[in-house]
Amino acid sequence: MSVTAPRGFAASGIACGIKEGGALDLALVAADPAGPVAAAATFTTNGAAAAPVRVSREHLQASGGRAGAVVVNSGCANAATGALGMAAARKSCEAVASALGLTSAQVLVCSTGLIGIELPLDRLLGGIPELVAARGASEEASLLAARAIMTTDTHPKQALVRQSGFAVGGMAKGAGMLAPNMATMLAVLTTDAAVAPVDLAVALRFAVDRSFNSLTVDGCTSTNDTVAVLASGAAGPVDLDELAEALAAACAHLAFQLAEDAEGTTRVARIHVAGAASDEDARRAARRVAESNLVKTSLYGADPYWGRILSELGSAGAAFDMDRVTVAYGSTVVCAGGVEVSHDRDEVAAYLSGPEVEINCDLGMGDGRGTILTTDLGHGYIDENMRTS
Amino acid sequence: MSVTAPRGFAASGIACGIKEGGALDLALVAADPAGPVAAAATFTTNGAAAAPVRVSREHLQASGGRAGAVVVNSGCANAATGALGMAAARKSCEAVASALGLTSAQVLVCSTGLIGIELPLDRLLGGIPELVAARGASEEASLLAARAIMTTDTHPKQALVRQSGFAVGGMAKGAGMLAPNMATMLAVLTTDAAVAPVDLAVALRFAVDRSFNSLTVDGCTSTNDTVAVLASGAAGPVDLDELAEALAAACAHLAFQLAEDAEGTTRVARIHVAGAASDEDARRAARRVAESNLVKTSLYGADPYWGRILSELGSAGAAFDMDRVTVAYGSTVVCAGGVEVSHDRDEVAAYLSGPEVEINCDLGMGDGRGTILTTDLGHGYIDENMRTS
Repeated sequence: MSVTAPRGFAASGIACGIKEGGALDLALVAADPAGPVAAAATFTTNGAAAAPVRVSREHLQASGGRAGAVVVNSGCANAATGALGMAAARKSCEAVASALGLTSAQVLVCSTGLIGIELPLDRLLGGIPELVAARGASEEASLLAARAIMTTDTHPKQALVRQSGFAVGGMAKGAGMLAPNMATMLAVLTTDAAVAPVDLAVALRFAVDRSFNSLTVDGCTSTNDTVAVLASGAAGPVDLDELAEALAAACAHLAFQLAEDAEGTTRVARIHVAGAASDEDARRAARRVAESNLVKTSLYGADPYWGRILSELGSAGAAFDMDRVTVAYGSTVVCAGGVEVSHDRDEVAAYLSGPEVEINCDLGMGDGRGTILTTDLGHGYIDENMRTS
Repeated sequence: MSVTAPRGFAASGIACGIKEGGALDLALVAADPAGPVAAAATFTTNGAAAAPVRVSREHLQASGGRAGAVVVNSGCANAATGALGMAAARKSCEAVASALGLTSAQVLVCSTGLIGIELPLDRLLGGIPELVAARGASEEASLLAARAIMTTDTHPKQALVRQSGFAVGGMAKGAGMLAPNMATMLAVLTTDAAVAPVDLAVALRFAVDRSFNSLTVDGCTSTNDTVAVLASGAAGPVDLDELAEALAAACAHLAFQLAEDAEGTTRVARIHVAGAASDEDARRAARRVAESNLVKTSLYGADPYWGRILSELGSAGAAFDMDRVTVAYGSTVVCAGGVEVSHDRDEVAAYLSGPEVEINCDLGMGDGRGTILTTDLGHGYIDENMRTS
């Protein structure tokens, strides 16, 4: 169960012909009964933002944070498609709005797939009646929606966090071009909490900063990153901090699933940096290590070459004194005071060959802490990305 | 011919036992006849700078920009080696100084190899008498020196630029951990121009900015990057602009050789960005494209997926308006006004399968220009870097 677990939502996923071979490629998450509810979203910071990102941003602004549906297509990013692409995104919203008795501005739209390809709008519009008719609150309906937003994902990603009195559900997709900033790949969340749009936006930002924005796969910020949340209000008012924490937990669960299923990944690593001069420094240093091709390739080879980690910490731009640095794989310290600590290399290599790895760094400069989730870089990533056709 | 082509220099390369199997691992470039000459260097910006970087920086400062020799070992970076490493770097300089009648501060030292390993100082010191005795101005001597500084390089890199009246020679090494900033991998340059240390430093900075600092292989800034230049003065005074241009040409030649021989590389690409709001913006955007794993993996696959280039331009942090962007592979425009331009995909793919590729981007925002040299990312990089032992 995911987006339909909180009360007040229906979902669907169908094949409308954007993808070849009848694969699912169109998803809907809608308030049920139909009507506008509180909504918020964060979007990519990429200046080449796709048409659906631009249109959804406009719609949230125009509706004052109210939306009744999110429509998502996979198989085409509708990015770098100019005025035609903008018109296509608007028409997608209009069609859903008209079927659900909403205004166009009360519909958000997301697209994912290849950049620079014209959206097959006729097929998408042709699918809307079936998409709307098929919506339901069943487990199967939410699973179909989660499947319909997949691109190179090998399995659907869903999350559910139940709190006393309310719930947060979510689905996400994304397996490459992952280094979100302010937003991320596509994720749609729902909650039955009753919350004002402005409070929902604050809670979402809190959640995204602690989850998707702390994930990097290849350092690339997509043109289409969107995280949207709808709040039906069916569960009544809730504690805002509790809502933010529940959203963060659901987003973190989805972010971990994205890392685990990232293109060609064999291993997920959490880079923890403590003892930094500030939390910002800690995150900067952790991100530098997390995005290093040399560190990621070592992770692929399960090779405990900590010198690469030290080198990245030193070049991150964070306050740094090599003589104070500690690096550990899991609980095994391999470097302290900037020099090697005697350790059992085979034991560390064995630890590094597991599916989940922790790298613990301490800069010895203060109390700043930060964590970035990353993946290894191996042959699978090359194979998956070297050709698009 | 390289470092011994300008008048007033001798070089040598020997095996002192740092590398296993008798491979060359110790090189010397010295003023000939022995004595201090004008010297300058740029070093890594990495906060985890290796002992030889710290010691060479101190020496240049203490000597007022005068040096008579550069001693380089490969097979061990002497980085993350604490106080022992600093003492080893100092003792290396002392031994060379004593053999050549120089002060210790008139000797620069460079090391390259794995980080975090203690330098086998006894072997290095044991090799100094042979290294000093073997020095000569022959082509063979400079080739042995260029070979002795190699690590994962598959061949030595040398350059020679002859101007009317003076010459610039150089050698370099480096095949991974390449995204120099302020300096680069190891390179030693010589010139017979007569130039004051302060002017030599300015000319070197000019040259490095236009060559090594415009090269990225994996976005990683090494702990040991050093570019040093010695000027014998044997050719007498020269025009400083001419010297800077000659140094830049020699450095550019070496940088291209580094890119071509980078670990696992099959293809070199020049990312040109024009029409940026400023030169800084242009370089920032070009670097973002050049460091993108997705762009680099497309290059490996000779796949003309220009959407990834557009996406990186948009997320570079440069002033950006998608509707003004042009992207071309070589002379074939594939995107204009932010949307696809009809083109022969097979023809572009054929162009992209060559050993050298040009990607020409125009942001349509102003007159800023910049170029970054990069490489593709393929299976060879993974194989080369996944394990260090």
